[in-house]
Amino acid sequence: MRGDLSRRAAEERDVADPLAGLRDRFVIADPELIYLDGNSLGRLPAATPDALARLVRQDWGTELVRSWSTWIDWGRRLGDRLAAHVLGARPGEVVVSDSTSVNLYKLAAAALDANPGRRTILVDAEEFPTDRYLLQGLAAQRGLTVRTLASDLDEGLTPTDVRQALDDQVALVVLSAVAYRSGTLLDLAAVNAAAREVGAYVLWDLSHAAGSVPVELTASGADLAVGCTYKYLNGGPGAPAFLYVRQELQARLRQPIWGWFGQRDQFRMGPEYDPAPDIDRFLVGTPPILSLAALDPALDVLAEAGIDRLRAKGVGLGELMVDLADAWLTPLGFTLASPRDPHRRGSHICLAHPDALRISRALISEARVVGDFRVPDRLRLGPAPLYTRYVDVWDGLARLRDLVARGVHEQLPVETLRVT
Amino acid sequence: MRGDLSRRAAEERDVADPLAGLRDRFVIADPELIYLDGNSLGRLPAATPDALARLVRQDWGTELVRSWSTWIDWGRRLGDRLAAHVLGARPGEVVVSDSTSVNLYKLAAAALDANPGRRTILVDAEEFPTDRYLLQGLAAQRGLTVRTLASDLDEGLTPTDVRQALDDQVALVVLSAVAYRSGTLLDLAAVNAAAREVGAYVLWDLSHAAGSVPVELTASGADLAVGCTYKYLNGGPGAPAFLYVRQELQARLRQPIWGWFGQRDQFRMGPEYDPAPDIDRFLVGTPPILSLAALDPALDVLAEAGIDRLRAKGVGLGELMVDLADAWLTPLGFTLASPRDPHRRGSHICLAHPDALRISRALISEARVVGDFRVPDRLRLGPAPLYTRYVDVWDGLARLRDLVARGVHEQLPVETLRVT
Repeated sequence: MRGDLSRRAAEERDVADPLAGLRDRFVIADPELIYLDGNSLGRLPAATPDALARLVRQDWGTELVRSWSTWIDWGRRLGDRLAAHVLGARPGEVVVSDSTSVNLYKLAAAALDANPGRRTILVDAEEFPTDRYLLQGLAAQRGLTVRTLASDLDEGLTPTDVRQALDDQVALVVLSAVAYRSGTLLDLAAVNAAAREVGAYVLWDLSHAAGSVPVELTASGADLAVGCTYKYLNGGPGAPAFLYVRQELQARLRQPIWGWFGQRDQFRMGPEYDPAPDIDRFLVGTPPILSLAALDPALDVLAEAGIDRLRAKGVGLGELMVDLADAWLTPLGFTLASPRDPHRRGSHICLAHPDALRISRALISEARVVGDFRVPDRLRLGPAPLYTRYVDVWDGLARLRDLVARGVHEQLPVETLRVT
Repeated sequence: MRGDLSRRAAEERDVADPLAGLRDRFVIADPELIYLDGNSLGRLPAATPDALARLVRQDWGTELVRSWSTWIDWGRRLGDRLAAHVLGARPGEVVVSDSTSVNLYKLAAAALDANPGRRTILVDAEEFPTDRYLLQGLAAQRGLTVRTLASDLDEGLTPTDVRQALDDQVALVVLSAVAYRSGTLLDLAAVNAAAREVGAYVLWDLSHAAGSVPVELTASGADLAVGCTYKYLNGGPGAPAFLYVRQELQARLRQPIWGWFGQRDQFRMGPEYDPAPDIDRFLVGTPPILSLAALDPALDVLAEAGIDRLRAKGVGLGELMVDLADAWLTPLGFTLASPRDPHRRGSHICLAHPDALRISRALISEARVVGDFRVPDRLRLGPAPLYTRYVDVWDGLARLRDLVARGVHEQLPVETLRVT
């Protein structure tokens, strides 16, 4: 049932929002800009500039190389913070390192090596491109086959789809907990159980899930996961990624990039690679400390909010957005390109429109609303419950409606638009 | 012939030093601390804190995701700056990405794939551990053999050593242009020519060479190189690494980590991986922008100094250090563990002493001189010509002499020392 769609109703929901106070913990440099792209790059936490400045001046500038005695453990320390506050994992199961792509490569290779003889990698046909490409590379190098799971472009996969595709030739399944385009949320526990039955590993990409929906890696029986920290985790542009390996699997799995941060007793610098017995074996090289440092203040705010309250607000924002789209945008040629059931979605929503590229660009330049375009014809809008208000969703969609109704986007020359 | 070893002579050399003014372009937070570890972590350039603060506040905080329209090319833009000012390479031959370890993995795998049928990887037995481990991993996965070149621990390898070890079974040679421990400088052109004769690729690790000695990748006929930017390039702790692939080879080589930053027309997000035709194919995932941003102010100072003037001063500082070590430290049980000929060394110097671990620790805590310990018994001292003065070398070695002469280090309980 659709609620009250007035702006006043949105204002009232903001007043009642238990997370409303946390918006002040972010830099809102331009109050006129409506930012609905926190699913791509999260906002700057207000505490981050000072934290970084201190790190640069004190830890680097003054302490110099001596700071490595603490930095050396940051990948693991930040991993434990993520495990506790975001990922539902145990201490020692998560590290922060490298990019999501490199982490996915490492864990996918480790899983394939641990499942020799099986010929198939299973992946959502609509999986984020880097994941698909990486698996194509691993398959090419090993003579394996990547089988894509065709899913409804808007509704996404269900655990049943996955279960039906599984057989004893599947070595590895790679899926996003929240799909990057449709926002479809998959039930981790159901997929993990189905895969375990046939002896396949599941490697989760949590990039759009971490910080937006409750993720219970340990409780859901997850084996492997990776994800980025620059979306709902607000770690900054290109912030280092995380990886998770279930404790019971760590001694059994080996990743292919044998760098010195994965070495047992790293500074002995012995002649032979001898991987650390624990999660450290999934590390490779020296981590980018400035980028790691931005994670702490971001996680502070997230821990304070708590993932359950974030999820509740995320559902509320999403439902408002869908209701407004139904009322205002359907008559203008938009269709919802995400699951309609809020329990089957993460925090972002996709709308399909034949002119989505021009609309997304005009929306930024003419209406000061930031969303993003995704091929082939999708406008993706990602309210972030830590700092997006109900009135932001209302105002953003009102501006979008007015822009399209007035045909403003049609004045943009489409040939000048670069797809990024 | 040994020069005047008085402190006054050192002061006079500082007065005459054409690079003396550049010391002010770095933060010297503690003038009493003598920092001889720029070969491990370079100092903080004075312009870096403001540059980072601007990036964080403006590009991230205010512009938000829109900044990706410029960030997207930073790996390549910074690579071109490195190519021009530091590496003697052509535009489009260098990118900044990932860690040195991950880059070495990518390029070594690419070279091995391009040289099928050959069974041997050749590496210096004293090569930096992460390089050796990575090659062991690649060899294990492909059934190849890693052959180590035994070199004199102090004098290091010569091109003749390498030439004699080469045969038509060698697919790849991995060497450091400047060895991490002894500081031995290899002649790139001579090694490249010898390897080309037998059809082997050479992959150079330039971590201790970039910014300390002139490197002419193009002119020396180099095929492949990697290196870090946090030592003599002053990019900050764990700053992203670079990789170089000779233009003529780029279309022929493919690396194994097929991430979306290596994809031709990345944002089309097409179904199949189709590597970019140029250096971009060696990229993988989203780069850590905060860490990349610190490279620009660091390269500004370096470009102003010019690599030839840096090298001239580096030789001067090294010769003073060796002369003082001969005069003061040999009687205390030290021996030089680097080539004596300054043209066969990079900018850092190693001294062997049976009690080097305790000495290196006491030197920091009791004498406020920062160098570092390297197994088995080495004290490594790295003056950095951009900001190290001749008097710093003089004072540092005088403090070292006095500390050891008084036996201060012997009071440190050796069992509490963690090797890092």
